Amino acid sequence: MAWVTIVAVLALIQYTAFGMLVGKARMTYKIDAPAVHGDPVFERYYRVHMNTLESLLFFLPSLFLFVQYFNPLLGAGLGAVFLIGRQLYFFSYIKDPASRGPGFALTLLPSLFMAIGAAAGAIQSML
Amino acid sequence: MAWVTIVAVLALIQYTAFGMLVGKARMTYKIDAPAVHGDPVFERYYRVHMNTLESLLFFLPSLFLFVQYFNPLLGAGLGAVFLIGRQLYFFSYIKDPASRGPGFALTLLPSLFMAIGAAAGAIQSML
Amino acid sequence: MAWVTIVAVLALIQYTAFGMLVGKARMTYKIDAPAVHGDPVFERYYRVHMNTLESLLFFLPSLFLFVQYFNPLLGAGLGAVFLIGRQLYFFSYIKDPASRGPGFALTLLPSLFMAIGAAAGAIQSML
Repeated sequence: MAWVTIVAVLALIQYTAFGMLVGKARMTYKIDAPAVHGDPVFERYYRVHMNTLESLLFFLPSLFLFVQYFNPLLGAGLGAVFLIGRQLYFFSYIKDPASRGPGFALTLLPSLFMAIGAAAGAIQSML
Repeated sequence: MAWVTIVAVLALIQYTAFGMLVGKARMTYKIDAPAVHGDPVFERYYRVHMNTLESLLFFLPSLFLFVQYFNPLLGAGLGAVFLIGRQLYFFSYIKDPASRGPGFALTLLPSLFMAIGAAAGAIQSML
Repeated sequence: MAWVTIVAVLALIQYTAFGMLVGKARMTYKIDAPAVHGDPVFERYYRVHMNTLESLLFFLPSLFLFVQYFNPLLGAGLGAVFLIGRQLYFFSYIKDPASRGPGFALTLLPSLFMAIGAAAGAIQSML
């Protein structure tokens, strides 16, 4: 389970780092709180952070449910795909929001696989 | 605990499906990322997803804390109420945001019940 | 672990209360759903809730991972710092968003400490 903890912590740190970059972008583009609009580049940083929040709420529960039924190392490996996909999402979104697809897919698919896997594992455990 | 896993996965899939519908609404109403405003119907899909995210972050921890102290089947049953309430919230919000009350209440109350129940169970375990 | 449950429930209730205050502010400042803009004071309530959501998604997993490797009472104590920091964040943000720094720091630092601590604990457990 140690690798699962490490992957989960890395996802939390990545997410928090993206949040820090929103704070930095507030200063760079002079967007004072509570505003979240007013500059298109600031809005990219803001949306990357929000989408990462949205993705993380799918990823973390799916990961912890999956490893109750399957090999934790497989969960940690799928988590590594999530981390790489999210980093790709960040770089592509900041460059051009229209190019965010591949990074988004690489974060969505591991979570989807683990969520469905966890449900399958739970159903099998009842049979 | 298998039913708890299944209910949790269904809530995660429901939430992700609402997110997919935001992506679809982006295309239908021609709202390019990073914008999240510009069309009132698009904004309904966006807010349903955001509110589901907000609700899920209350629901999932409450569910998993509750079933540490009480019958997991009761937690799964309350989770089923959450799922139905959220689906009602989706349909009523898309039709008319002013009608979102009942669906919202049906998602809030199971989480509130389980959160307070978990705290009560924890206090009792210390006595 | 009972104190960890109680602290987690209090954080969930605090977060939900901030959400209720957004609903109340919708009525006070006449911001009908799905709009989330249009009044600067309403936007403060809205952003406090969103930022609390962002912080809670870092805090709760960090807390539960941390107490797998360290004394749960230490986790609960750091959780109390989070709760106080979040309440300070709420009051200072509503009064003046520019004064939100100390409350933000008091919520971020306990989560950061526990996240890094959990990863360190996991690494140590593998050695």
